[in-house]
Amino acid sequence: MPYRSPVGEFRFILDQVVPLAPVAATERFAEATGETVDAILTEAGRMCDEVLAPLQRNGDLHPARLENGVLRSSPGFAEGYAAIAEGGWVGLAAPQEFGGMGLPQALNMAVNDMMSGACLALQLNPLLTQGQIEALEHHASDELKALYLPKLISGEWSGTMNLTEPQAGSDVGAVRSKADPNGDGTYAITGQKIFISWGDSDVTANVCHLVLARLPDAAPGTRGISLFMVPKYIPDADGAPGARNSLKVVSLEHKMGLHGSPTCVMAFEGATGWMVGGEAKGMAAMFTMMNNARLAVGVQGIGVAEAAYQKALDYALDRKQMGAIIEHADVRRMLAGMKADIFAARSIALACAVALDMGRATGEPEWQARAALLTPIAKAFGTDVGMAVSETGVQIHGGMGFVEETGAAQFYRDVRVTAIYEGTNGIQAMDLVGRKMMDGGEAAFRLLQEVEDAANMARAARPELADLAEQVWTAAETLREATEWLVRQEVQDRFAGAVPYLRAFARVLGAHFHLKAALAEAEAGPRAALARIYVTRLLPQFAAALDEARQGAEGLYALSAEDLAA
Amino acid sequence: MPYRSPVGEFRFILDQVVPLAPVAATERFAEATGETVDAILTEAGRMCDEVLAPLQRNGDLHPARLENGVLRSSPGFAEGYAAIAEGGWVGLAAPQEFGGMGLPQALNMAVNDMMSGACLALQLNPLLTQGQIEALEHHASDELKALYLPKLISGEWSGTMNLTEPQAGSDVGAVRSKADPNGDGTYAITGQKIFISWGDSDVTANVCHLVLARLPDAAPGTRGISLFMVPKYIPDADGAPGARNSLKVVSLEHKMGLHGSPTCVMAFEGATGWMVGGEAKGMAAMFTMMNNARLAVGVQGIGVAEAAYQKALDYALDRKQMGAIIEHADVRRMLAGMKADIFAARSIALACAVALDMGRATGEPEWQARAALLTPIAKAFGTDVGMAVSETGVQIHGGMGFVEETGAAQFYRDVRVTAIYEGTNGIQAMDLVGRKMMDGGEAAFRLLQEVEDAANMARAARPELADLAEQVWTAAETLREATEWLVRQEVQDRFAGAVPYLRAFARVLGAHFHLKAALAEAEAGPRAALARIYVTRLLPQFAAALDEARQGAEGLYALSAEDLAA
Repeated sequence: MPYRSPVGEFRFILDQVVPLAPVAATERFAEATGETVDAILTEAGRMCDEVLAPLQRNGDLHPARLENGVLRSSPGFAEGYAAIAEGGWVGLAAPQEFGGMGLPQALNMAVNDMMSGACLALQLNPLLTQGQIEALEHHASDELKALYLPKLISGEWSGTMNLTEPQAGSDVGAVRSKADPNGDGTYAITGQKIFISWGDSDVTANVCHLVLARLPDAAPGTRGISLFMVPKYIPDADGAPGARNSLKVVSLEHKMGLHGSPTCVMAFEGATGWMVGGEAKGMAAMFTMMNNARLAVGVQGIGVAEAAYQKALDYALDRKQMGAIIEHADVRRMLAGMKADIFAARSIALACAVALDMGRATGEPEWQARAALLTPIAKAFGTDVGMAVSETGVQIHGGMGFVEETGAAQFYRDVRVTAIYEGTNGIQAMDLVGRKMMDGGEAAFRLLQEVEDAANMARAARPELADLAEQVWTAAETLREATEWLVRQEVQDRFAGAVPYLRAFARVLGAHFHLKAALAEAEAGPRAALARIYVTRLLPQFAAALDEARQGAEGLYALSAEDLAA
Repeated sequence: MPYRSPVGEFRFILDQVVPLAPVAATERFAEATGETVDAILTEAGRMCDEVLAPLQRNGDLHPARLENGVLRSSPGFAEGYAAIAEGGWVGLAAPQEFGGMGLPQALNMAVNDMMSGACLALQLNPLLTQGQIEALEHHASDELKALYLPKLISGEWSGTMNLTEPQAGSDVGAVRSKADPNGDGTYAITGQKIFISWGDSDVTANVCHLVLARLPDAAPGTRGISLFMVPKYIPDADGAPGARNSLKVVSLEHKMGLHGSPTCVMAFEGATGWMVGGEAKGMAAMFTMMNNARLAVGVQGIGVAEAAYQKALDYALDRKQMGAIIEHADVRRMLAGMKADIFAARSIALACAVALDMGRATGEPEWQARAALLTPIAKAFGTDVGMAVSETGVQIHGGMGFVEETGAAQFYRDVRVTAIYEGTNGIQAMDLVGRKMMDGGEAAFRLLQEVEDAANMARAARPELADLAEQVWTAAETLREATEWLVRQEVQDRFAGAVPYLRAFARVLGAHFHLKAALAEAEAGPRAALARIYVTRLLPQFAAALDEARQGAEGLYALSAEDLAA
């Protein structure tokens, strides 16, 4: 069976587990009524199932390619992109004054999730555009906004991020690209950028590059970096694509997966650019773009996990080996674990999105801190789940999983990059234990208090869930103690345990949301059964992860580089 | 830097951790002196580094292909295979009377490990031949042995296993291929087989298929299955390849990885076959072949993990991001974990091989039971480590890990199949908790007693290791209790926890061997540091795994197939 958008699951989560109601109660998002949410999810889901999902294999089998410097997308991608643009899905959360729907990110992420499950390689294109829209919205001049936002929001043009250079991957401060003032308010941008996703496209009329570069007298490191809008075609007086700018795609990467998404080496050769966000303010603007994109990449992992799960489930229902293999305990264990993890990751991502929306709508710092805290968790856990579920999906297929025709292998290959791009999952974890704990853990403690309160309530209200609630409460308390320990440590010791700490945090949050889902049932049903699987089988991993998180750095450096090579 | 065979590591393990000395003290393996071991490891390591490793990318970029029914191997594979054959590595553990070296499996597995790390796709060919040699040695008539064993052992001919049919994957009892008596002692074999690795080859003069099929009056299920030798070319009076047999490669699979190894759909159309092992004795003979192959596949995972680790380490030493990235705590955490896991998996595999050797040399049932117990653990854990280390290897490379030119992605793709073929890791786990516990857990308890005794000794002898020894002892004791629980359960409840139980067992055994390695140092050095990393950071995972293992099946079936699809 082909991919089916899990519309009902989003309805359930946004209704019962991570309620959208408080968001819809704000003035800013008053339009996000239940009726609108239903209509959006249904309509977007239909497009994903009918238009995007059939393109998934095309992108893999017929990668984007470069013909005499001209990019040719995978077959059908232009039509697929047109459907995304026509649906208004690029601008679902974009400002209404520039043509967007102005709806909450929570809804936008639900739609992104479905689009990712249907066709990840194509979905990456509007994902990047959405990030660019946010960056421009918050940092660009009114003139640039007026020129670019309507085109980006309508989907006529697409946007990219140009951060990485050969010598500067995660170390953005090492960027060398130059921006020389042209004397007319524009800049001549020169430099090479690598790993530029959708760095060119024949599915949009223009490609707008946001490029990090340095002014001639810039300070070294990240403090000297500015951001520039460098369009492929310079808009003419009417705002239509005009003269070709001095930039080009040098080559495309040959990647393990995501073949439908062209990953470009870009050369800017004195290309005309417009500054966004002021001199040496490039990092701030870029972070706006990246924060949105980080959550969205976590959602990509979840979307792929959903698709991989559906495919594995279909296979398990269909494949006979002494009866349908879904009746085998180990296959059922795998499927139930996949489903439980997808629900956990999805709820975390939507909770992050709701916090973002609440932060924007109310301006309350507590919501903003919640969103900031959850972003690295949503990104890393969502993509970890994407990898794990895709791996298990291959396993359920047995030998058929290793051959390409089933599609199980494509998920496994495609999703691998999501743990790497937009900041590796290691960088997410360091962000969590570093920057996101600069409040002394306040945002984390507030969230854990909610987890404990909910567990206490569940224990009191629902005897049949009491044992689960007890385990969730204990896990949250252990995580609180670990967090209290963490915020007292030196940065190196924090970093040494960052990844397992993040995983433990995600495990606990996942259990919290499973418990809420079980509470939503009038009596113990499938949600309680799934919660039980998560809490008894998967949650216990948090303890080992915290053990590792609390080891500090010393033991790691007890092994020298020579010892590691011995 | 290219792949370097870890010759010194094998010397260390076989000297200090899993001593080969008792094997060499038996009459059968008296030739396995330290000098011989050194010479074998050095010579085989040199061939792997110089001849096989340079072929690794060839297999990926230029897959084996079918041209008008003729198989064409990847460039250089013929020369690489010739080096393997000339070195005598196919027959390292094969009987001397047929031209083998008659050396222990422990040494054979060390060489297989190195060959797998250097070029997995090519190494799969002699691996399968080795399995066939064992099956023929134990089950074939003297005539068949005299005809086939010398050619297989010399590497002139290669061997395959033909189990799987489209409707019969893990369910071997569903095999439908037919064997009709020709009246002259031979049989006419008819049927289709799928997933036949190296089902044809242009690197050997003949390809010898062992084929599972049914006699006309055979009982249903596995009891009615017989095994047949069906050569591509029927040996003539001189034993040279003669008339072409009625079998052919129908097509090759398009796989996610291991492109250099042709995976064939085979058609047998009344092909002439000779029975191996008597009527309806096919399963017993096939199990001989599979048991060897299962350990060898575990070793494949370890070999790939070694290669992936080396590549990631080289990258981490070389790549600068605010200093070489190996100085970053999270990168060091990943590298140290990879190294610790490889050591654990390798020691387990070699312990299994030593038990096999001791069982054969002495005939003692306790050694045979030890080998039987360790085989599924070695297979599943070795390949799990292969997957995990390759995944982490990609992660350390960042964006470069996702592009194919570094080779990190190839490990990730290639190794994926090792968790599937020769019995999925789920099937290994069911074998462990089912068949291998039919002794009431006796073999397991005996092994755990050794683990506890060693921990007690370490605690008494070496104060600086006492805390580690304590943790290992406690883990072994917890595993013993879980095992006592397990053997009292119904089969379905065992199966529901089989995979996490196996993982917990492997975690504990790995800690045991790390402790032994640390004890081999006169004072705490790099081995102790690595043991500390394993015991404090990775061993704790055993507890969560046992939690899951002890949940039983009920909770899994509380979710119906419809619930899983909801």
